[in-house]
Amino acid sequence: MDQPSLDRDELRAGIDHAAAWVEAYWEKVASLPVRSRVKPGDVLRALPEHPPTTGEADWGAIDRDLDAIVLPGLTHWQHPMFFAYFPSNISPAAIMGDVLSAGMGVQGMLWATSPACTEVEMRVLDWMGEALGLPQAFLFRGGGGGVIDGTASEAAVGALLAAKGRVLRALPREARREAATRLVVYASTQAHSSIQKAAMVAGIALDADDHDRVRLIETDAVYAMRPDQLAEAMRADLAAGLRPCFVCASVGTTGSTAIDPVGEIARVMREVPNDGASPTHQPPPSGREGSVWLHVDAAHAGAACVCPEFRRLIAGVEHADSFTFNPHKWLLTNFDCNCLWTQSPRELTDAMSITPEYLRNAATDAKAVVDYRDWHIPLGRRFRSLKLWLVMRRYGVEGLRTHVREGVRLAEVFEGLVRGDARFEVVTPRTVNLVCFRLVPRTGELPETTDARNKTLMESLNDSGAMYLSHTVLPGVGGTPARYVLRMAIGAVQTREAHVREAWRLIASRAG
Amino acid sequence: MDQPSLDRDELRAGIDHAAAWVEAYWEKVASLPVRSRVKPGDVLRALPEHPPTTGEADWGAIDRDLDAIVLPGLTHWQHPMFFAYFPSNISPAAIMGDVLSAGMGVQGMLWATSPACTEVEMRVLDWMGEALGLPQAFLFRGGGGGVIDGTASEAAVGALLAAKGRVLRALPREARREAATRLVVYASTQAHSSIQKAAMVAGIALDADDHDRVRLIETDAVYAMRPDQLAEAMRADLAAGLRPCFVCASVGTTGSTAIDPVGEIARVMREVPNDGASPTHQPPPSGREGSVWLHVDAAHAGAACVCPEFRRLIAGVEHADSFTFNPHKWLLTNFDCNCLWTQSPRELTDAMSITPEYLRNAATDAKAVVDYRDWHIPLGRRFRSLKLWLVMRRYGVEGLRTHVREGVRLAEVFEGLVRGDARFEVVTPRTVNLVCFRLVPRTGELPETTDARNKTLMESLNDSGAMYLSHTVLPGVGGTPARYVLRMAIGAVQTREAHVREAWRLIASRAG
Repeated sequence: MDQPSLDRDELRAGIDHAAAWVEAYWEKVASLPVRSRVKPGDVLRALPEHPPTTGEADWGAIDRDLDAIVLPGLTHWQHPMFFAYFPSNISPAAIMGDVLSAGMGVQGMLWATSPACTEVEMRVLDWMGEALGLPQAFLFRGGGGGVIDGTASEAAVGALLAAKGRVLRALPREARREAATRLVVYASTQAHSSIQKAAMVAGIALDADDHDRVRLIETDAVYAMRPDQLAEAMRADLAAGLRPCFVCASVGTTGSTAIDPVGEIARVMREVPNDGASPTHQPPPSGREGSVWLHVDAAHAGAACVCPEFRRLIAGVEHADSFTFNPHKWLLTNFDCNCLWTQSPRELTDAMSITPEYLRNAATDAKAVVDYRDWHIPLGRRFRSLKLWLVMRRYGVEGLRTHVREGVRLAEVFEGLVRGDARFEVVTPRTVNLVCFRLVPRTGELPETTDARNKTLMESLNDSGAMYLSHTVLPGVGGTPARYVLRMAIGAVQTREAHVREAWRLIASRAG
Repeated sequence: MDQPSLDRDELRAGIDHAAAWVEAYWEKVASLPVRSRVKPGDVLRALPEHPPTTGEADWGAIDRDLDAIVLPGLTHWQHPMFFAYFPSNISPAAIMGDVLSAGMGVQGMLWATSPACTEVEMRVLDWMGEALGLPQAFLFRGGGGGVIDGTASEAAVGALLAAKGRVLRALPREARREAATRLVVYASTQAHSSIQKAAMVAGIALDADDHDRVRLIETDAVYAMRPDQLAEAMRADLAAGLRPCFVCASVGTTGSTAIDPVGEIARVMREVPNDGASPTHQPPPSGREGSVWLHVDAAHAGAACVCPEFRRLIAGVEHADSFTFNPHKWLLTNFDCNCLWTQSPRELTDAMSITPEYLRNAATDAKAVVDYRDWHIPLGRRFRSLKLWLVMRRYGVEGLRTHVREGVRLAEVFEGLVRGDARFEVVTPRTVNLVCFRLVPRTGELPETTDARNKTLMESLNDSGAMYLSHTVLPGVGGTPARYVLRMAIGAVQTREAHVREAWRLIASRAG
């Protein structure tokens, strides 16, 4: 065959073809069953076992396979009746950014390997931080800074490594290895699993069951972390010779969008005396050495902070060392785009910097630039900030607010419908765009029977293909048993009021 | 403004616009200075300090900023005269895959969240593994399996966590935490920095200087790891009460594409008796428990194995536990696309699996499916296998071979030109597409003077904008001093013989 090349005609034909497929997909997606109905192995078996020897020039065959094999195997996250997990927003502007990034094909591991790839990201992270109302100290122009990671899970690993380095560097080098075995991470019982996973990755927890090193702090009646319980756990650990290292405050838990009180958490962290080598936690930038790192995981709900009326959710964030959220959930930006900010970039990069000879260059050596490869695990990185830049330009902060407010409004509408039907209850106060609800227990019904009826309802709805929602189990409060709860997460780009009302009609009609 | 939506007209206009920009970029890229000439802060200052309040509908302004601000800040990895670092291939087919993935906007963290996203990836990983000549045991159909990570750095973390889990799980639980402080990682002095970084991330190394836990093994005259030195280091560590855990064999070092002898490394690993709890390393699948994990990092050079004549590079790979390479370097697939295979998926997923309630589902509970979120750190994941699927279909294995062979042929051409000029020397045998060369020392010249002349030559070439190459420092062999070496890495998609000859003309003309 011919030598592969960056043929412009082939690019145009390929992009036209892909765009046409996507346009057709968007046109019909609302008519497809939301959740895929394939069985394990169906897609695999439909694909040839061996790779093609010779190339195909005919996109028609690709099209047929996309339609016949891939499409039935998709669960449609862009379906207007997708209410499961969290939204995974996309937008034309973000896709345009991805096309530009793919076509440029540059690597931004170092400033020097494509300066615009670094500096557009720096500027856009300052923009987004400002849009959320983060304090200046998290922005580059305030001495902090931000970076795009793939996911909040990766951001958690980065923040935890910075935290670990802070505690250990306060000790003599020879004491660090042993001290590293005594580090403890704190998060609520409702925190995302990525916090535990980060502790496993970073070698703090031995495994997912190692609750001697990952303390899951009890929550209150609305599933927010109890600062008094955090303080108690930290005091007990200190008394036992362990070393508190990292606290994750969840601003919007995955289960129910509960909001851990960041300011209160920071306060108790300051009040719990850390051990001799480590001063009490202090608000940055003073007194950081050896103190406990406070990370705010606002992966989903952080998006709401583009609206001033929701910034109360992150009250106290000025005391945090790092803050992360995902534009790729509810803010119109294609996955993957997680923003992580820190008031202390130096501690993040200290934890992850290595400079082998083949990466040395004048700009890095002069310390005149940001080299983003030191802000996360990957070395290579693509021009991901283009999509966020274009989304912010296309919609403006006002457009982002419009989108968020509509999601919240629709959740209010849904909540009202649930409250108007005595067969159902709203289980915990709605924070923004997630409604946690369930069929109420019948008189004398066993809790497991109530749970089973809710599960059956959910499965019936999801099996119908007409809508898709997911569940969680929320712990009991005040001695009540844990509850199986349905999660209605609103915020897909295509979802309108009619869809939410139709979802409710389906739910109510199947509630029996 | 209007509610954001998945407007098909906007999608078409945006994609057309982006595609047109990319087409124009490809048309002119060869005429641009390869390396960006902006100074630190130039791009940042050209962008507004604050985010836009209202949205823009006019792509014309975006275009102007792309041309005026972004373009001058790019170092052009797709330039035919880009010979620095390693190639970062892109292709029309891969871009088409990215557009489709972006337009579908699905999440593949679990099989259940979009089965095709998982099963296309499984099939394509089997295809690619077969194309490289990996043993069946690395393929899903042979009981192993593969996953797409972002980068080889992330794959290294995954493999290392699996290795750590293997060693520690062989011990009683109460012994694991202390044993974790005695784990040791081995790689050659020429291994990629990501191996050290992985050890830092995983909590094995305290920091980049912790060579008590990351042993950098001496290399031979061609910069390949010396198995005898590895054996000696492992024996010494065992005698000192440490626990060998992970060996990385580099198949194609970043500095010079040196090839560590995988088979010999596996042999000495078998011969070094591990401690009481851990049997000698055995070829998988037998006798793995507690034994040392062998990871093959073929990030760049692995691509050559699509050609049978280069499979000798990975001779002995059947003894490895994991193997990784990047289609996004030299195999026509846009970043980010790293393939990681293991003969032992269970050990990889044991190291990274947590299942919170909100992710539970029937398919996962039945263990009937692959849930890729357990194969790496991120939870969310996009449909990245689409681009690899389309690249393999568009080019076929034969097309990939054509591309690789041409890169190797051009490197041979360049090598011949260097050898024909007495002012220069080829510093180490060329393996595939990288030529390491330098100006030879003048009689009586101090080594640092030779190095300085080479550095000056490189900087003069890079400053000219006409071409871009990078350097490394290779250690001295047999008592000779370390050498500053120029790296000519061939394999950009647009590079043709005329470009290589022109590069040589420029080099020779500036050699003084």
